[in-house]
Amino acid sequence: MSTPTRDAWLAWSAVAEPSDPAACWLVEVLGPEAALAWVRTASEDHFEASVALAPYAPPAQVEAAVQASGKWAARLDAADAQVHLERADAVGARALTRVDQGWPEMFAHLGPAAPFALWVRGNGEPAALWASSIAVVGARASTSYGDYMAAMLAAGVADRGWTVLSGGAYGIDGAAHRAALACDAPSLAVMAGGVDRLYPAGHQDMLAALLDRGAVVSEVPPGYAPHRSRFLTRNRLIAAASATVVVEAASRSGSLSTARHAAHQHRPVAAVPGPVTSASSAGCHDLIREGVATLVTSPEDVLELASALDAPGATDGAPPQGSASSGSAPDFSSPQERAAYDGIGPRGTTTDTVAYRAGLTIAEAQVALGGLELAGLARREGPVWRRKPPLGRGSLASEG
Amino acid sequence: MSTPTRDAWLAWSAVAEPSDPAACWLVEVLGPEAALAWVRTASEDHFEASVALAPYAPPAQVEAAVQASGKWAARLDAADAQVHLERADAVGARALTRVDQGWPEMFAHLGPAAPFALWVRGNGEPAALWASSIAVVGARASTSYGDYMAAMLAAGVADRGWTVLSGGAYGIDGAAHRAALACDAPSLAVMAGGVDRLYPAGHQDMLAALLDRGAVVSEVPPGYAPHRSRFLTRNRLIAAASATVVVEAASRSGSLSTARHAAHQHRPVAAVPGPVTSASSAGCHDLIREGVATLVTSPEDVLELASALDAPGATDGAPPQGSASSGSAPDFSSPQERAAYDGIGPRGTTTDTVAYRAGLTIAEAQVALGGLELAGLARREGPVWRRKPPLGRGSLASEG
Repeated sequence: MSTPTRDAWLAWSAVAEPSDPAACWLVEVLGPEAALAWVRTASEDHFEASVALAPYAPPAQVEAAVQASGKWAARLDAADAQVHLERADAVGARALTRVDQGWPEMFAHLGPAAPFALWVRGNGEPAALWASSIAVVGARASTSYGDYMAAMLAAGVADRGWTVLSGGAYGIDGAAHRAALACDAPSLAVMAGGVDRLYPAGHQDMLAALLDRGAVVSEVPPGYAPHRSRFLTRNRLIAAASATVVVEAASRSGSLSTARHAAHQHRPVAAVPGPVTSASSAGCHDLIREGVATLVTSPEDVLELASALDAPGATDGAPPQGSASSGSAPDFSSPQERAAYDGIGPRGTTTDTVAYRAGLTIAEAQVALGGLELAGLARREGPVWRRKPPLGRGSLASEG
Repeated sequence: MSTPTRDAWLAWSAVAEPSDPAACWLVEVLGPEAALAWVRTASEDHFEASVALAPYAPPAQVEAAVQASGKWAARLDAADAQVHLERADAVGARALTRVDQGWPEMFAHLGPAAPFALWVRGNGEPAALWASSIAVVGARASTSYGDYMAAMLAAGVADRGWTVLSGGAYGIDGAAHRAALACDAPSLAVMAGGVDRLYPAGHQDMLAALLDRGAVVSEVPPGYAPHRSRFLTRNRLIAAASATVVVEAASRSGSLSTARHAAHQHRPVAAVPGPVTSASSAGCHDLIREGVATLVTSPEDVLELASALDAPGATDGAPPQGSASSGSAPDFSSPQERAAYDGIGPRGTTTDTVAYRAGLTIAEAQVALGGLELAGLARREGPVWRRKPPLGRGSLASEG
């Protein structure tokens, strides 16, 4: 289970802030282990560190990494993955990294800004939860109208088998999570700080109740505090849902950052209208007017947006089936084929993206996809590869 | 003042229902006088009437006119213009036809479905009122939220010099008119029935108050009742405003027809969001979701839409200056030049449209526009002709 690469990813989740651009770039070009070694070099010799990076990037990018190396080096004592894994174990949490089975495919949309690792509490599988998730977000200072709308939309999508994804905060987030719990449906909360601390304190019981069928996750290790900047970077993981609905938000409020992250990830954004006389709806109206969000008034409206992304066979309003939730695993003739199959994802994608997701070269991906096609596990539709699951209900519809 | 052509237009406003497609086609191809004579023929001999129209249209169109001729012939006793003019005079009303100075240029967007005539009460000039108008419309069964939003938006545009245009009805219409009155600003009400009867009865005092600076108008003569179908056709004249705002409307309600008319005329449509829990806002949400309307929350939002249509020099939020309201009239060297100048309109247009509006052939319009250009009264911007008013504040800006 513990490999040097996996430990290095866990170390990066402890050493660098989430989505730190210099860190994301560094691990992208060097890989996590060499990147960690580079930080040790840089803490002793900036010049040598610069020279080591010179082949990889323009000088400005190298300079940014050298500049940032100081703050990473200051946390090198936190780079021991075992320490964090023990802390996690103490609160019943586990860790996932980019190289693990069960890493959420939805993070592919984040590109290099994907988390280094995910720290997880709860019985739900993050990959399956994310793949079937609708993010319902909004203001902490919600109105009773906003709370009603959040609960109505969350219950509506939960009833149809979707996971309600939010940030666990007071106001809209809480109303959405509680509605999912009331439907006995899984819900997923993404924390800005470590999962040892169910934050905010007033929502401890609610968040603890999520653990039974859903999960509480974070990209920083247990013990890390919910700093302000971590709320903003955390929002991009909420935005990795199949669709994001902003229920209430004041103009220029922080609640809008999730919507902008979702738009940046080319994922559907919805907003709920409200009275013009309510400042709590002004941000929603801004999103609609600017064309960032689609106006929605019902769970059906939201699922119509989410389903626009789905592959054929999953367009009946039910969520797509993530790999982690599929009943029977196909037989693969090589690890490359397995990785390529996972890389296709439930919605299908291009050879380039399969290669990127699977960590294969383009040539390796082409060979693996050809093998999957011969084995009847994948098929090509123009530039897009799609899975042909051995038992999935989507297979008949898509071959008809 | 009374000419055979003018009398014929007045007769058509009494003989045919507003925007009757067969009547609009007939007066388009034959002119109003010959069209009236044709109805007299048709009332005696359908075959001869069909033969007379044969050169003009496909058989189906001719057949439709012959079919419709019966109901027009049944009203031939109403074709005496003098009778209607006397009735109008008795209530202080006057008439405008397509051939009169002061005919609203905004009706050009209606094409052949423009009114045959307009019956007018009040001190305001319809051309100037329409050219600077914002339509504020919505449900009769409005909520207090809707009434507030109608008044807020109407007062906001009235304060900036725009005319509030509506239908005089209970609910949203009344709230908009009253706000304009409270701002001591002109307002224009378009009635479905004759202007002798200020309808509905409960709004008599309000509508009478509009007459001082604005006007109450109708395309049917005094004495004609506000039939249900006339409300729907009346809405296209409200939609001829610079922009139309729907404040509150239930799904599939009649209040939405004005919005659809405006969209059909390629004029901006705005809608005010409201609580999803209010059925009175559902139609507005439909319009926004379908992309028919832009979400607006303030008078500035509405004027931004209206101003997108304006010529340079009128983009500061103030309404465009209609010909009827301009201070000093230019000197024209021919009636064709005057007609072409009027045909250009405050916003500028192509040679074809000038010809259409001015009742000139393309060749005549080209000669007249060339004369205006030499006289410094018009200029060409690519395919678009624009006025160069002798004293208008727009002239400096556009020549700079």
